[in-house]
Order: sequence, then C-alpha cells, then structure tokens
Amino acid sequence: MSAYHLSESKSIAMMKLLALCFFVISLINIPIAEARIRHYKWELKYEYKSPDCYKKLVITINGRTPGPTILAQQNDTVIVEVKNSLLTANTAIHWHGIRQIGTPWFDGTEGFTQCPILPGDTFVYKFVVDRPGTYLYHAHYGMQREDGLFGSIRVALPDGESEPFAYNYDRSIILTDWYHKSSFEQAVGLSSIPFQWVGEPQSLLIQGKGRFNCSAANPPMKADVCNNTNPECSLYSTTVVPGKTYRLRISSLTALSALSFQIEGHNMTVVEADGHYVEPFVVKNLFIYSGETYSVLVYTDQDPARNYWVTTNVVSRNATTPPGLAVLNYYPNHPRRSPPTIPPSGPMWNDVDSRFNQSVAIRARKGHVYSPPATSDRVIVLLNTQNRVNGKTRWSVNNVSYDIPHTPYLMALKENLLHTFSQTPPPEGYDFANYDIKVVQNNTNATTSDAIYRLQLNSTVDIVLQNANTMNPNNSETHPWHLHGHDFWVLGYGKGKFDPINDPKKYNLVDPIMKNTVPVHPFGWTAFRFKADNPGVWAFHCHIESHFFMGMGVAFEEGIERVGKLPSSIMGCGETKHLLKP
Amino acid sequence: MSAYHLSESKSIAMMKLLALCFFVISLINIPIAEARIRHYKWELKYEYKSPDCYKKLVITINGRTPGPTILAQQNDTVIVEVKNSLLTANTAIHWHGIRQIGTPWFDGTEGFTQCPILPGDTFVYKFVVDRPGTYLYHAHYGMQREDGLFGSIRVALPDGESEPFAYNYDRSIILTDWYHKSSFEQAVGLSSIPFQWVGEPQSLLIQGKGRFNCSAANPPMKADVCNNTNPECSLYSTTVVPGKTYRLRISSLTALSALSFQIEGHNMTVVEADGHYVEPFVVKNLFIYSGETYSVLVYTDQDPARNYWVTTNVVSRNATTPPGLAVLNYYPNHPRRSPPTIPPSGPMWNDVDSRFNQSVAIRARKGHVYSPPATSDRVIVLLNTQNRVNGKTRWSVNNVSYDIPHTPYLMALKENLLHTFSQTPPPEGYDFANYDIKVVQNNTNATTSDAIYRLQLNSTVDIVLQNANTMNPNNSETHPWHLHGHDFWVLGYGKGKFDPINDPKKYNLVDPIMKNTVPVHPFGWTAFRFKADNPGVWAFHCHIESHFFMGMGVAFEEGIERVGKLPSSIMGCGETKHLLKP
Repeated sequence: MSAYHLSESKSIAMMKLLALCFFVISLINIPIAEARIRHYKWELKYEYKSPDCYKKLVITINGRTPGPTILAQQNDTVIVEVKNSLLTANTAIHWHGIRQIGTPWFDGTEGFTQCPILPGDTFVYKFVVDRPGTYLYHAHYGMQREDGLFGSIRVALPDGESEPFAYNYDRSIILTDWYHKSSFEQAVGLSSIPFQWVGEPQSLLIQGKGRFNCSAANPPMKADVCNNTNPECSLYSTTVVPGKTYRLRISSLTALSALSFQIEGHNMTVVEADGHYVEPFVVKNLFIYSGETYSVLVYTDQDPARNYWVTTNVVSRNATTPPGLAVLNYYPNHPRRSPPTIPPSGPMWNDVDSRFNQSVAIRARKGHVYSPPATSDRVIVLLNTQNRVNGKTRWSVNNVSYDIPHTPYLMALKENLLHTFSQTPPPEGYDFANYDIKVVQNNTNATTSDAIYRLQLNSTVDIVLQNANTMNPNNSETHPWHLHGHDFWVLGYGKGKFDPINDPKKYNLVDPIMKNTVPVHPFGWTAFRFKADNPGVWAFHCHIESHFFMGMGVAFEEGIERVGKLPSSIMGCGETKHLLKP
Repeated sequence: MSAYHLSESKSIAMMKLLALCFFVISLINIPIAEARIRHYKWELKYEYKSPDCYKKLVITINGRTPGPTILAQQNDTVIVEVKNSLLTANTAIHWHGIRQIGTPWFDGTEGFTQCPILPGDTFVYKFVVDRPGTYLYHAHYGMQREDGLFGSIRVALPDGESEPFAYNYDRSIILTDWYHKSSFEQAVGLSSIPFQWVGEPQSLLIQGKGRFNCSAANPPMKADVCNNTNPECSLYSTTVVPGKTYRLRISSLTALSALSFQIEGHNMTVVEADGHYVEPFVVKNLFIYSGETYSVLVYTDQDPARNYWVTTNVVSRNATTPPGLAVLNYYPNHPRRSPPTIPPSGPMWNDVDSRFNQSVAIRARKGHVYSPPATSDRVIVLLNTQNRVNGKTRWSVNNVSYDIPHTPYLMALKENLLHTFSQTPPPEGYDFANYDIKVVQNNTNATTSDAIYRLQLNSTVDIVLQNANTMNPNNSETHPWHLHGHDFWVLGYGKGKFDPINDPKKYNLVDPIMKNTVPVHPFGWTAFRFKADNPGVWAFHCHIESHFFMGMGVAFEEGIERVGKLPSSIMGCGETKHLLKP
C-alpha cells in the first residue's frame, strides 16, 4: 500500500484529498441540519453501592445509578446498546413515555414486546423521540427496577423552537424509594404462601441519594455495611445562583410510595406533565406518583446567604419511611452546608383532598391543547381490587389478576402462536350494580389470566379506573396507572363509584391534559380517552412495582397486522425457539 | 358419547376390554424387561430457607435443597423437565459424571453445550445413564450451584446383576459448604477491582443441614434471621440398626473447601469412586474434594445404646469454618439424641501427606480394571496459576485465564459461527525449563481467552496438571479438576515439578482407577489419560465454584462433525439468535 501511495501522482492525491474533505464536511453538516442519532453504549452490572449509606447490590449503568441521562432533540433517533453483564440475570429496559411509533418491538417490556436480554448479550434499542419533554427509562422485568436500573430522558425542542415558558437552567431529579432487600428477596416474599410483605421502604432517594440512619438500626449494623460518613450517601445538592429561573424536571420511579415534593421557601410553577405543557399553576407541595414526570419552574428569590432544604415525603400511606432530603445550594454557599432550619414537613399523609385537587387542577396549556375525539367507540371499566388466588395475595382488575405470558405477545400474534396465551377476552367491566366499593369483598371468583384486550385500530377507547376497598377494612390505595405506547386525555376524576350515566357528562373535553400515567385516588375513579392508533401490544398497569408483579395490569393490542417484520433480537424465549432454523 | 356406549353390543365391548388389558400388560412388562424411562418434573424457585439456621434465599427443586435424588438403573433413560421459576434469573443443570454419549447437548453446561434456561421456560433434559454408580447434578451457570441447586444421582445395576461387595442399606449424603451471601454478592466481589474475597464459608452442611451459631454472630442477628431452634436446621440424622452393612454414597459439592469426613467409632471401607469400583481400602478419615463421589461401607458394630457423631471438616485451608455435624442414629435411640461424646476432630488441615497418600491408594478393583491405552497421542500440561488480568485477580492455566463464550461452543461449531470465540489455540504447556513453581511469579503475560483444545476423535490424550505457588508467598492450593463427558485413567500423582522424562515411566498402567474428578495437591502434579471418543464439546475445570468463575478451566472438542442435529431448545442466546427464521 505505501509503495502504491508513493507512486501516485500529486494531482490524483490532491483530488482524493478534496473528495475526502467534501465527505467530511457532509458528515459534519448532516447532524446540524436534521434529526440526529444519539448513540449510547451501556453496560449493566451488579455492583455494591450505598445510595442511602446502607451497602447492597444495585444494578448500575456504566457504574452509576441513576443511569446516564439521555439527552436528545425532538425527532432524533436514540440508539442504546445495552450490554447485560448481570451475571445470571436477564433484563429489559422500557423507555417510559416514548410511544415507539413504528418500533413497538423496542418498548422494552418483557413478555409483551421482547424476550429478556440474556447475560453476555448486547441488545440494541433504536427508536425516535418524537415529542419534546421529560421522560424516563427503567427496567421492565420482574421487580428489577427496584435494584436501581433507571434514569431520565430529556427531549429538547428542535433548534429554533422554544418552550412557552422561559427559564435559565434545566435540571433532572428522579425521586425513588429504597429497600435494603434485593428485588429477588422482595419478590419471593410477595409470591409466598403465606404472603410476606416487604414493608415500607427504608428511605427515600432524591436523584439516587438518601440517608438511612445507620446508628438507629436494630440490630446494629457494622460500619462496612452501613456508614453515615460514607461520601457515597452525601445528600444530593443542586447549585443555583440568585435571581434565576430553574426548570426542575421532577419525576418519580418509586417502588411503592406516593410522594409530596417541596423546596423550602420556594414556590413551584408546574408547566409540564408527562411531556405535555400544563396551564401554569403554583404549588408549595407537588404531589407525584410513580411513573409521572413534571417540570416546575423555581425562581431563586430567597436570601442567598444560606441553603434550603429540598424534601420529599410519603403520602397516601401512613408510612414509617422518613422524609428524603436534598439541598438547594445558593452559590457561593458550600454545597454541603446544611440549611439552618429544620427540614419542613410535608402535607399530612391522609389528606386525600389536596391530592385529588392537584389532579383536577392540571389542564392543558392554552394554545397547546390537543382536542380529544368528542365520543368514544368503546368503554372499558377496570375495577381495582385485591383478592386471593390459589392461596396467594394478588391485585386484580375486574377480579382477573394479570399474569405475564412466557412468549411475548408481539411474537405470539405475529408468528401465529395464539395458543401461548388465553384467548378468552378479559372482562369489559365489573358487576357495577351490585358491587360495593367501600367494603371488603369476598372476591371468590377471582382468576388469573394473560388474556389481552384487542382494540380496533384507530378506534377511540375510554378507560375508567374504579378504585375500591382492599382486603383490609376501610382501606383503599392510590394506584398510578401507566399506559405504554400512547398518551391519553385525562377526562375526569371522581370520588366514590363512577356513574356511567352522569359522570361522562362532566368530562373535560375542552382542555384535558394528555398524560401517560395517572393516579386513581382511594375510593375514587379516573377516566381517560385514547386513540388506539399505534400498532403493537401495549402494557397498561399500576406503576407500583409490587402491584404489577402481583397482577395489577392488562394488555392492549391494536393493528397487529400493521406491525412490520419483527427483529430477531427480541426473540429467543418461550415458543419463539420454535422459530429457530436448525 | 354415553349414548353411543349404551348402544354398543356387549361383544364389541368385551373385545375392547381385552385389547385394553393386553395394552396395559404390555406397558407394565416393558419397564421390567428392559431399560426404563425415569421421568422427573422439577420446578426451580427461590425460597427462603435456613439450612444452617440462617435464613436466606436458596434455590429449591420442588421445594427442597438438596433436590430430589434421581434413582435409575443402568441404561435407563432419564428425562428431567426443568421449569425455571427463578424470577429474573436463568439456569442450567449439569449431570455430573454422566457422559452424555450421543447427547452432548444435554450436558447442561451453559456456554459450552446450551444457552441458559430462561425464567418461565421448561427445558427437557433426556439422557441415558450408561454406567452404574454414584453421580451428581448441579447448576452449571455462574456461581448458582452455591445457592443450593444440586442433588444426587444413583444408578443401580440392571436386575440380576450385583455389585462386587455386599451391603444391606444404601444412603446418599452430599457434603457442601455454605455462605450467607448470595451467589450474586459473592460473584460481584470476586470480579471487583479491588478484589473482594467472599472469605471462608459460614458452615459445612451434611445432606443440606448444618448449624451456624446464631448467638455468637457479631453484630447480633434477630431471631427471624438466625434461630438455632428452627427445626429446619436440626442436624441430619441417619438411622441404622446394629450389625448391618451400610453403603454410604458420600459426595462433595463444596464451593471452596476440601473436606475430611468421618464417623465416630466406625471404619469406612472405600469401594467406589466416581462410579468405578475401587480395590477396597479402609480409612478413618475420607478426604473428599468438590465434584468427587465415593461409596464407603460401614458396618454398624458399635455399642447400640447410643448415637455417634458424623463429622466433616475443612482441610487444605486454615479455615475458620467450624466442622459440620450429623448423627449416626442407632435404632432405637432417638434420632435427635446427641451422642454423649465431644465430636471427634478431624485430621490437621495442613497434613498434605495423608491426603496425597489417599489419592495414591485408590486403585481399580481387581476384576474390574479397564486397561488404559499404553501410550498417548498428545500430552497437554496445564500449569495452575494465579495472576492479575486487567486489574482483576484471576486463576489461569498456562497463564491463560478462561472466559466462557456467549455463544455456546456446540452451536458455534455446528452452525459455523467460529467468529464467536478465539481461534488461537490455547497453549499445550508452559515454560517448563524456567518456571519456578515454588515462588510467586510475576505472570505479566497473562491473558484471557475462550479458545478451545481441539482433539482428534478417538485419540488418546494425557493431561498433566501442574500446581504452583499462588500470588501469596509459600501458598499453593488444592484444585479438584472435573472433566465432562469422559472418565479418565488416573496415572499418577507427584510432588513438586512434573518431570516429563522420568515421571511418565512411573505411571500406573496396570490398575489405574477411572474417575471424572481428581485433585492436584499443593505444589504437586497429577497425570491422567483419556480417550477423546465422545463427540461434543466438554468443559474441564477446577470444581471450586469461585475458581472456575475466575478463569480456572479449559474446553475440549472432539468429533464435532459426528454430533447429530442440535435441538433448538438449547439455543436462543448469543449468535444463535441469527438462526431465527423471521
């Protein structure tokens, strides 16, 4: 080769150099001019970490939990190469809030859209982020999310476009609750007879950091297990300068807890929810449920001579989990300097009205309203109940407790393996006339099923989530339901039993917010509408990790015939092995 | 149907009944007349158990650890349907000592012969047990064996044939060591930088039972975590009647420890090792290494008014692990009645000579000698060393630390996916002339590799295991090496460096025992010979779970072209996904 180069004439060399220059310039130009590719390479590992000072195995992405924030612009293509180095455990990653239009096989929902990713394998997710806003990613396999496998996705507007609100700085903060037991240990307890509940979380984490009181542990813990001086569990501190507006993208990926979030001495103006602009409203406490994302604007107008507490606390449960703390650090105070105050306490855990009122207050921002269809083609009412099935404590919907199938639906439907899941359609409602939602019911007819709701492509579907009493007297929990593959219009919330004649008349069809996650409050109902316009199979489930694990979910299919050729990378489990050539 | 039955004539009914009778009789007769099918259905689960009084997650088979004993007769076909209910973890089960002639794909070695079995999947192993004797099964994936997934296989002679020794009763006893940390936690430590050794096991278990001293734990443990009154951890007790001969099939599946096993006041006559008859010899202490099985005959000739201690203790390491205890219960004493004596202590941990002498003492039983080929076609010398590779502490062979490939060899070789593993042949030996095995070496040229030794089909291969100093001064460990797919003739053991000129002249070619697992003693060598006559790909590795995990193994291939069509059930991982049709 070098001999050949030496014999080349100078003119040919010059032409080649020019051609190369043009080629390089074209490469540089493409990404600026249009949608770019955002390429991430991740390695997932178990590692010992001490997020709240207690040392335990967590799942890290490139050594971190929370994992790296995905930064992209609207219409970019995100490619994430996930290498599973989790020893003997599989994984799958869901891109929470990303609709996966045209790529339903990359939704990352094990059992729905893909087989799990095996240890040693590298799975490549590739999808378009088609809307700006605040999204999340997390494990969607077993209860693995609780081991720390999650992170933020932040999609900016295209160059030249701007948000309908102004801010100087942009920060992402994920709220989680944290258990000291592994997700394996938790899951074994939940599926045991008798049921062994994992209990309330040991701590709340703000952007992956919290503080468990090691010295109060009983029995005492050794310093190599729990150490409050470990810098790994120093509180999260975010630095601000006075007189600026901060956009804080607050999201919750709690395993169990509903939260209130507050910043001492500062109001928060809510401007975004689940990737949609909100008609601004001001709160002192932001109520947030697992799977939700909010953007709030915070103006740093307080005394700059000190720091301020950022706190989060459990609501909706009378929990033993202490509040989570972080620091709003006014420059040039030291980021680790404790605020001089006692961390302010949040709202009362059982103040349902305030939470209900926040839900109702959220409306689409003027000028950014997507109008819902005026009517729906189908109404599905989903009664949220608890029961016992085969001796196990389960959550269920219309008395059917959901089981994830072994052959993912997407393959089962596309490859004609319909025998792999129940073909008996799940119920469209419950015994509305005779069911008292306010008392413990003897749900003796409860069953388990992996059947799916098959929706007409492009039809409009109304979902009414009806909450009810659990198996404990005078108890109804908050369930944040998350829909994959779609945003939906939130039509209304109510207290008590949904009235199918009169309540729909009060639906907000004028300026409903679109969301992907919505709470149903204790003993209440929540109604929403969506267009079944995204060919694929989509999970819809309570985002409380243990509730979905215990059966609180359903599956929707629409337009399966429009789904393109499935990539073989999603296969390899269940009956898809029969698709192997040899 | 019932209407049709009623209208049948009686004569037709009678003929049908007769035909049914013949059919049923034929079914009954087949299994008696010839090899039978032994069908097992297993479900694998994580469950909380307290084998040594400390409660932790273990892997159970049908609720038990050790799992059910497989009972079969020579030439029977064993079918085991393994349902993986391990939440998010995979598995694979190896049938230790079963050669898998004609079924190399059911050896159960993840990365070699199959992809892991996914949660929710049921994998069907089907193989012939072609030789009588004492065998084992256990997980062969990551370090999962340590979570309790193991059991015994006992293959009896065909009806009408008898052993060359007499006994009245037959019992299987598996010895293990036990850690309180999960295999995930252990593995993370071992692969961390800096290296975090899991330490010595917390207890020794005899047939799955042991006793950790809960009250001595520091820091103290709560009673729901560790409770010495828990009946789950009552000592293993085996009931005997006086004046009888008991065949005890003693096997070891320790994670780390070399053991001595003894029965207070009773001699043991060794009659079988790894499925081969041994020229009987009497011991008071049976030394046994992980992966080995022995049958000993015990005559119950002691004072029947009391019980006797059965003990096992760590040798070869100066371990902190207390001895494991069980009870030899002379009927009619109560099985839980403690023997009146202090449990006898075993031999000194550092008495290498006694262990060496037992190894040398084992010869094939007269009349049951399989003569080895007089010469070999190839000699491979495997230097056992420790080193650092990329900052990690590793074990290695000839300075190559072994990595398991992501695409199992069997598929890679049969489906022409040779790019999936290194094609650079691993070394046949080490720098014999210049390497001092007695000192710490600076093995700076150490590498990792997943390359394999390709053996000529039906050739005769000699393996010389050469032990050496670890990375600690004056330290060399005992490594029990286990060969899959073959038995081998044990030609000799030596102390110090193997002399390739003179030592082979001392090989025992007259009555060498055949085994599948053999120790190499500290600073010593072990030589064996085998016929590469079993088409397939076979692991050969140190049976210490952490050592193999850290690279102490190799792979042999022979006659891959003779391997039949691979079942698709073994596929689904790595590049075998490319074999999917869609």
